[in-house]
Amino acid sequence: MHVDELETPVVTVDLDILETNIAGLQAHLDAHGIANRPHIKTHKIPEIAQMQVKQGAIGITCQKLGEAEVMAKAGIQDIFLPYNIIGEKKLARLVALTRTCRMSVTSDSEIVVRGLSAAMAQAGLTLSVLVECDTGMQRCGVQSPAEAAKLAKVIAESPGLHFGGLMTYPSSERANLFFQETRKLLEADGISVERTSGGSTNTIQLAQTFDEITEHRAGEYIYGDRYQIDCDAMKVEDCSLKVIVTVVSRPTENRGIIDGGSKTLSSDVFKTPGHGLILEYPEAVIYSQSEEHGHVDFSACERKPEIGERLSIIPNHCCPVTNLFDQVVGIRKGEVELVWQVACRGLVQ
Amino acid sequence: MHVDELETPVVTVDLDILETNIAGLQAHLDAHGIANRPHIKTHKIPEIAQMQVKQGAIGITCQKLGEAEVMAKAGIQDIFLPYNIIGEKKLARLVALTRTCRMSVTSDSEIVVRGLSAAMAQAGLTLSVLVECDTGMQRCGVQSPAEAAKLAKVIAESPGLHFGGLMTYPSSERANLFFQETRKLLEADGISVERTSGGSTNTIQLAQTFDEITEHRAGEYIYGDRYQIDCDAMKVEDCSLKVIVTVVSRPTENRGIIDGGSKTLSSDVFKTPGHGLILEYPEAVIYSQSEEHGHVDFSACERKPEIGERLSIIPNHCCPVTNLFDQVVGIRKGEVELVWQVACRGLVQ
Repeated sequence: MHVDELETPVVTVDLDILETNIAGLQAHLDAHGIANRPHIKTHKIPEIAQMQVKQGAIGITCQKLGEAEVMAKAGIQDIFLPYNIIGEKKLARLVALTRTCRMSVTSDSEIVVRGLSAAMAQAGLTLSVLVECDTGMQRCGVQSPAEAAKLAKVIAESPGLHFGGLMTYPSSERANLFFQETRKLLEADGISVERTSGGSTNTIQLAQTFDEITEHRAGEYIYGDRYQIDCDAMKVEDCSLKVIVTVVSRPTENRGIIDGGSKTLSSDVFKTPGHGLILEYPEAVIYSQSEEHGHVDFSACERKPEIGERLSIIPNHCCPVTNLFDQVVGIRKGEVELVWQVACRGLVQ
Repeated sequence: MHVDELETPVVTVDLDILETNIAGLQAHLDAHGIANRPHIKTHKIPEIAQMQVKQGAIGITCQKLGEAEVMAKAGIQDIFLPYNIIGEKKLARLVALTRTCRMSVTSDSEIVVRGLSAAMAQAGLTLSVLVECDTGMQRCGVQSPAEAAKLAKVIAESPGLHFGGLMTYPSSERANLFFQETRKLLEADGISVERTSGGSTNTIQLAQTFDEITEHRAGEYIYGDRYQIDCDAMKVEDCSLKVIVTVVSRPTENRGIIDGGSKTLSSDVFKTPGHGLILEYPEAVIYSQSEEHGHVDFSACERKPEIGERLSIIPNHCCPVTNLFDQVVGIRKGEVELVWQVACRGLVQ
C-alpha cells in the first residue's frame, strides 16, 4: 500500500532514515569510545529497541517501570531506569525485573536508597544504583558534588546495592565538571566511578568533548522533530517521523483546518511559534489546535491548499506524539512496509 | 482496595461526583427544554456514555469516526459527529455506521457535501447533515448566515442527504444571532431548521438564554478541571477526576518532583500558570514538566511534602489526560469500585 492510501491522521516513520539515524549515532559514539544507551521513551516500540541493540547499543534507557517490563519481556538484556523507585508495589516489580535482566536505576536521596536496599537485600539480589545529579536543569538530582559523593557512599555501603556511578541530563560542560569533582571526592575515599551517564540528542556531536561522561543517552535522534531542527541538531531530511494529515476545511482565504490537533500533535511548544512544520507549506503556521483539528494560517504561502489535500508535518516534539497513538506505520520509498505497535504507551504506571 | 493502595500515577474518578454531574446537567437542560447531547471526547468510555443516555441524553457527540464506531458497537443509538468527513475509506466507514445507528454529521463546504451525498446515495441511505458555523472561534465553519443558508440549500437538494440544522461552538450571544439570521433566510425559502446545536461546559448555566439553540453539547462537565474552575463554571468539589501522584524527589528546600509529567497531565496550559492544581498544596506551582516528572515549586506553602507523599491533582484540561491512559479507576468513598477502559483512545483514526 502506498503511503497516500493511509487514512489520516497517521504517524509514519521512514525506515531508511530511521536506520541511518540508528547507525549514525552508533558510529559516532563508537568512534569516540562512548557507550550508547538510547532512550526508548521516544518510540516505546520493542522492535526499534532491538534494532538499536543489534547496531551496538550496550542496552537501553526507560523512563518508567511499565516500559522496562515490556522491553525486558521483548528480550532486552540491559535496562537503565533513571528514576527514584518508591513504594512496596513498585519495588516488588523492580525486584522481578532485576531477576530477568541487568537492571540499573538512579536515586537522589537516602530515603529512596533505603527502600531499594531493603527490597534487594531481602530478595538476595544486587542492584546497580547511580546517583542522579542536577547539573542545571532543576529537576531531580543532588545539588553538589559533595552531596553526590555522600549519597554514593551510602549506596556503596547498603546491602543489596552496588554503587553504579553518576547520571545527569543533559551532557554539558557544567555536568562534566560536576562529575569530575565528584569522582575526585570518591576516589579519595577509595570508591571508583565505573560509569557516568549523560545524554540528549542535541549534544550528540559534542559527546566526545565531555571526557568525564562515559555513556550517552539519546532518544529523539531516531525520529527527529522541529525542536531538534530549531536546535540545529538535525536537518529536515534527517527526520524520519512525519504525521500525515488532511485539509478538511478552508473557511477563509488564508485559514485551513487539518484533521490533527492536540490529540495528534500534542500541545508541546518550544521557542518557534506553532504546533509543527508543514513540509509542503513551510511558511504556514499551525497557530492553534483543538483536540482533533489544527488551525493553520496559510497567509504567508503563495499557493494555498485545497480541501482534501494531504500534508506532512514534522511535529514540535516526537516523543509525546507517538505516545498518543497505538500504532506507527513504517514506510520505505513511499510504500507501507510494516505497522509497529507502540507497546509501552497507555500503561497505567 | 483503598485509593491509597493504587500505584501512581493514576487517573481516578469519584463516582458519586460523576453521577451528580451527569444528573445535574440533565436536570438543568430538561428544566429549560433543551436537548442534551454530551460530548464523549472527554471520557471516551462507553459505560459513561451509557450513563449519560440512561439519564436522558438524546444521544452523544463524538469527534472522530473511531470514537463513533466504538460507541455504536457499545449500543449507543444516536451519534452526532461534527466533522467534515472526507475520502473514500472514511466515507465507507460512515456508510457502515449510518446503517447501524442514527448518525448526523456537519459540513462547512460544498466539496464535503458532494462526497457525503455520493456515498449515501449510492448506499441508498439518508444522512442528516448540519451546517457548521464559525461564530467567532476561527476554526471550521461557514463565515456568515448567508453562506450558511446557501450551503443548507445545497444539502437539502443533495441526493442521500437531509438538511439537519445548524451547529457551532460554543454557545454565545453571537452564535444565537447567527442562527437567528440564518433561520430567517432559510424560512424565506421554505426550509425549516429542525435542530440547532451549541455547547460547552462553561455555558451550561447560560444555555436557556440562547433561545435559538435547541441542543447543548457539553463534555468536561462530567470530570471538571482547572480550566472550568478558572472560568467559575465548576468548583473544586464538582471535579470528579483527580490524578494521584507521588513525590519522588525533594532536591531542594522548595522543589519537589512528582511522578507525573507531560505524559500524565498533558501540556495544555491556559491562563493560570502551571500544569494543574495540587489539592493538598493549593499554593504550589507545577512550574514545568518533563515526560514522566512534574517539577513543583512549594515555596509558597507553609508545610512542604515528604518524599513518598501522595498528592491529588486536578489537571488543567481533563480531556487530553484521560486520552493518555488506557484505564481510569472509579472510586466511591475512597474505595476502588471499578476500572474503566478508555476504549476510544489511541485509535489510529
